[in-house]
Amino acid sequence: MYSFENDYSEGACPKVLAYLSEHNDIQTSGYGLDPYSEKAASIIRDLIGKEADVHFITGGTPCNILAISLLRPYQAVICADSGHINVHETGAVEATGHKILSVPGVDGRITPEAIEAVVKAHTDEHMVQPKMVFVSNATELGTIYHKDELQAISVMCKKHHLYLYLDGARIANALSAVSNDLTLKDIAELTDLFYIGGTKNGALLGEAMVILNEDLKKDFRYYMKRQGAMLAKSRIISQQFIALLQDDTYLENARNANENAQYLKEALLSKGIEMFMDSETNQIFPILPDALIKELLKDYQFLEWGRYDEKQTTVRLVCSWATKKEQVEQFINDFDKIMKNGI
Amino acid sequence: MYSFENDYSEGACPKVLAYLSEHNDIQTSGYGLDPYSEKAASIIRDLIGKEADVHFITGGTPCNILAISLLRPYQAVICADSGHINVHETGAVEATGHKILSVPGVDGRITPEAIEAVVKAHTDEHMVQPKMVFVSNATELGTIYHKDELQAISVMCKKHHLYLYLDGARIANALSAVSNDLTLKDIAELTDLFYIGGTKNGALLGEAMVILNEDLKKDFRYYMKRQGAMLAKSRIISQQFIALLQDDTYLENARNANENAQYLKEALLSKGIEMFMDSETNQIFPILPDALIKELLKDYQFLEWGRYDEKQTTVRLVCSWATKKEQVEQFINDFDKIMKNGI
Amino acid sequence: MYSFENDYSEGACPKVLAYLSEHNDIQTSGYGLDPYSEKAASIIRDLIGKEADVHFITGGTPCNILAISLLRPYQAVICADSGHINVHETGAVEATGHKILSVPGVDGRITPEAIEAVVKAHTDEHMVQPKMVFVSNATELGTIYHKDELQAISVMCKKHHLYLYLDGARIANALSAVSNDLTLKDIAELTDLFYIGGTKNGALLGEAMVILNEDLKKDFRYYMKRQGAMLAKSRIISQQFIALLQDDTYLENARNANENAQYLKEALLSKGIEMFMDSETNQIFPILPDALIKELLKDYQFLEWGRYDEKQTTVRLVCSWATKKEQVEQFINDFDKIMKNGI
Amino acid sequence: MYSFENDYSEGACPKVLAYLSEHNDIQTSGYGLDPYSEKAASIIRDLIGKEADVHFITGGTPCNILAISLLRPYQAVICADSGHINVHETGAVEATGHKILSVPGVDGRITPEAIEAVVKAHTDEHMVQPKMVFVSNATELGTIYHKDELQAISVMCKKHHLYLYLDGARIANALSAVSNDLTLKDIAELTDLFYIGGTKNGALLGEAMVILNEDLKKDFRYYMKRQGAMLAKSRIISQQFIALLQDDTYLENARNANENAQYLKEALLSKGIEMFMDSETNQIFPILPDALIKELLKDYQFLEWGRYDEKQTTVRLVCSWATKKEQVEQFINDFDKIMKNGI
Repeated sequence: MYSFENDYSEGACPKVLAYLSEHNDIQTSGYGLDPYSEKAASIIRDLIGKEADVHFITGGTPCNILAISLLRPYQAVICADSGHINVHETGAVEATGHKILSVPGVDGRITPEAIEAVVKAHTDEHMVQPKMVFVSNATELGTIYHKDELQAISVMCKKHHLYLYLDGARIANALSAVSNDLTLKDIAELTDLFYIGGTKNGALLGEAMVILNEDLKKDFRYYMKRQGAMLAKSRIISQQFIALLQDDTYLENARNANENAQYLKEALLSKGIEMFMDSETNQIFPILPDALIKELLKDYQFLEWGRYDEKQTTVRLVCSWATKKEQVEQFINDFDKIMKNGI
Repeated sequence: MYSFENDYSEGACPKVLAYLSEHNDIQTSGYGLDPYSEKAASIIRDLIGKEADVHFITGGTPCNILAISLLRPYQAVICADSGHINVHETGAVEATGHKILSVPGVDGRITPEAIEAVVKAHTDEHMVQPKMVFVSNATELGTIYHKDELQAISVMCKKHHLYLYLDGARIANALSAVSNDLTLKDIAELTDLFYIGGTKNGALLGEAMVILNEDLKKDFRYYMKRQGAMLAKSRIISQQFIALLQDDTYLENARNANENAQYLKEALLSKGIEMFMDSETNQIFPILPDALIKELLKDYQFLEWGRYDEKQTTVRLVCSWATKKEQVEQFINDFDKIMKNGI
Repeated sequence: MYSFENDYSEGACPKVLAYLSEHNDIQTSGYGLDPYSEKAASIIRDLIGKEADVHFITGGTPCNILAISLLRPYQAVICADSGHINVHETGAVEATGHKILSVPGVDGRITPEAIEAVVKAHTDEHMVQPKMVFVSNATELGTIYHKDELQAISVMCKKHHLYLYLDGARIANALSAVSNDLTLKDIAELTDLFYIGGTKNGALLGEAMVILNEDLKKDFRYYMKRQGAMLAKSRIISQQFIALLQDDTYLENARNANENAQYLKEALLSKGIEMFMDSETNQIFPILPDALIKELLKDYQFLEWGRYDEKQTTVRLVCSWATKKEQVEQFINDFDKIMKNGI
Repeated sequence: MYSFENDYSEGACPKVLAYLSEHNDIQTSGYGLDPYSEKAASIIRDLIGKEADVHFITGGTPCNILAISLLRPYQAVICADSGHINVHETGAVEATGHKILSVPGVDGRITPEAIEAVVKAHTDEHMVQPKMVFVSNATELGTIYHKDELQAISVMCKKHHLYLYLDGARIANALSAVSNDLTLKDIAELTDLFYIGGTKNGALLGEAMVILNEDLKKDFRYYMKRQGAMLAKSRIISQQFIALLQDDTYLENARNANENAQYLKEALLSKGIEMFMDSETNQIFPILPDALIKELLKDYQFLEWGRYDEKQTTVRLVCSWATKKEQVEQFINDFDKIMKNGI
């Protein structure tokens, strides 16, 4: 049984585990005041080429909660309807008192026009005040933002005094996509804050929040502690980021995930299987006959994304830093076998 | 420079690290639905000798937030004034809308009488409704609850329909204290929910919430996810608990911490140093002359707890699973040297 | 200058004011424990023909906040996208931590199918749990629910264990609409809780929350006080409800509002003006040429609802208990004059 | 049966009712945008002799909620332990996520020393950040702040960058007390925001929030609406404030309440009855034998404040704008009669 269910099915990538083990016995202070957190922050500042506050957070949902809770209570965040905060965080943002204003996304992406329409519809104190835009890159649907798209969103945000926040749970997958033309430097230039995801890139856990806008930096550690998102052994997260960011391991991990997923996509396409949407990163969404799915699930684990029509279902196949080409090839072989036997 | 600052200065204890490494490559589902979480829960159910829901949480503050957020919005939690939730969690409980009703503690412990006084003072809907009692064992001051004390609190809680919640960040230290007469079974019998602390017992992170009261079990995973306290790679926490709970490693780790701290306490007492309060576990609170502290801080890291008088300060010295007897002896030697040289 | 801006432009209707004055000097306890509150509640129980808890609340937004805050934190409310809670309450519901799941409405109404689609899309603890349906009757667009429609919604709610909550800010307008076939008794039978609006029916302020479902009654006064929605001089609200509900004054007030608005609608229709949507109650939504609006605004106050096309705008004209037929006729005359002069 | 239970037992004082009736039919916009709200605000600005934002709020608890919710989420408010927000608002402040740091009060007053002690104890992001001081004048115990006391508190607040907020539910009673040396101008000079109470001064409902500090003015109407504290017929509150503030009716109302209460106090003192604490305003706290209380309760309504000793209880007697001297004298006579008959 091999799992294409997600990109957090295994423990840590070898370099991460090695770094943790190697530095395990060294004593440090906790709660973000350890030298590893300082070192990892410094590496990130080098990568983005500018000043920033960097904080290491326990997970993606805490990152999103924290970023949005920087708003005043009556202010709202705009996102695509497929946005993780809108769908898959059990109301964690609303739990902090903020409304999410969702707009129809285009393959998981938000457009400047949709942002402006929301701003224009919110005119007075009987309505929430839109103040932040949430984007994820790669998106929840595996697509990515190109430089001109993110620039246009950034321009729209500045026009309407909105903060731009980028959820980078799979930022390395986006940066490693074939058609990508964004860099970490660009992202740091265009957003007010964003996070670099560790969990889906081979860390045991942890994300690195990067705050660029001076207005959002104050007292962030108070927010973290209050939310329960500050780890006592903060070094655990920062050590992993040192391991991932040194020598571009994070890009290497993401590239492996992307390449295997895209290889699988091409193989399926060549066999006449259609994709529900075209994605460039490590998640693909083939539309498969139900009978085929039933057979595949005997040997593979993956997510049934949604019914497509009476006889077909869209499934999600995810590759990760840990996926090996042989495993993808085995899947394709098994696919062929099932097809040959008739379904 | 050796640190007695806290019990989370190092990474993980060797058995934990070994277990993580050994099981690193195995694929599992995430978010608590992995077989390691099931296995760890099963071990805990065996240890407490009864049915319980067990959830693995990212940290102690999230545990406290979650336990208290099970109350209805207008209900409040009673705790000793030194309680962690009251002092050191940046209002995390109030962030979920609940008032904390603090009462004077006795060396960190709450008394049944203090609980009843709060209940009697809250009579109608113009006041919050007390509904839960928070105790920590070991307490924030290193003291422990004995069986008769916890029983008396439990009886008082039942009398007034209050839930009893035990913060077990250092539960292993309590259970390993020389005068302890409580067992995990007792605690599971006397409380409605409690957590077993991993972070301060040699885990990289993580705590195990144990819910005993049927009324509090429903939809707990919704609470976890909404709070951002559910780890994608949940196995990371449960694997560590398997390593800690198998073969009583957690008690062994705690015993090492306690014994070293108590050894240090006895040594200081024998030299005429008084303790601010008598603690039985891995935290001790000697009152030291300021000049001595200044010298000690050249070679050791520890917390200045609070000014005692014009010339003396109470400090906190903490030992952990990682503390070696030689390190304590070195501290005592250095202490003697400084004293001999005159301060 | 006459205002068709809303139905709360004047003070109180004469009977309300008379009752307040007449009973002004009598001493009572406060915070809902006065005999007037008991009497008004009793009148309401007679009107609905069944047992209910009745509470008098300061306004409509507090009612909505309170009803929805009875849910568990991770539970969500479903409403039409035009629902007041979704658009015009500045995130007051999210302020209590609850997500609103909005669905496309049909002229302001929600459908059972839309409700079921939401329920089916929310399958596990990574998403909020739908638990309440919000309807307003009359709707924010002046339309009403007929008996079969509300029954179908109620059936769907019961099927999926959802509470049904009806916002009755303009319930009297709905009950007085020409095609209405619902009674207060029906509404009390079909919903779990609802409120009877006073503010828009000729009261100075105040709404009467009627709780029918036993599960939702407990400790409601705690919620009220905590939200700041419990009036010290609670009698002020209940006295007004006695005045409104005695002798069906509330229906008479609403009928006056409806009739004048419908008279105005028919007059405009007969002159070739189209309505943005057909409403049966005291709000109408004619589409008017911009030049005409400009002229009308010299003598009348009303809301520009939204741009219709390049040269026309939808406006909202509202009549109330206080509107006199002469005022409507004056408006029609002025309309004719402007049209005659050419625009 | 006459009630000394509180100062909100009757409807409105005659001038208020007259003003409401007189202006009842005039049409205005709602939600604070009516000309009466502008006029009342202007009167208040004249009374305090400086610029201020003035908002009319439905009640005292909403005022307190709103003032404190202007803080950042992790910031806390300091108050005396007897403070209304700490005891009698069902956790309404915590409901907005803010911790209350209560300190022992001196007859209901907070001291600069207590404030500073709290500030010094909160040193880092593991604790909430004190940012506001709450005082009530008159206090919940009927005592008042003198000018030097409020000045000293104001100086301490400025020293530690704390906002000073004054709950003026009974501000008129404080300003009318015999020993008072504060003016509205002083209060506006010394605080960052405060409210002038209407409910306990002869209004049907409503309080006037006065915001002086520029930093706290922004978007206050968003907070109001979100909290459900903005009245549709806002004119109802502002009209009452015009009636109360014109010709110093508010002071006259308060003076009547104070004088009758103080007259009663002196009478009881002269008969050997002791007061639990000395208050100067319209609330007095005599210690009465239980048997006497039992007899008095046959003809009078009042609050039993708390048990004093085995045979005596402290009661609270409150006079209001509506209390007549004859009613107080009747009480004294009845008191004498009961005493003469022996208890």
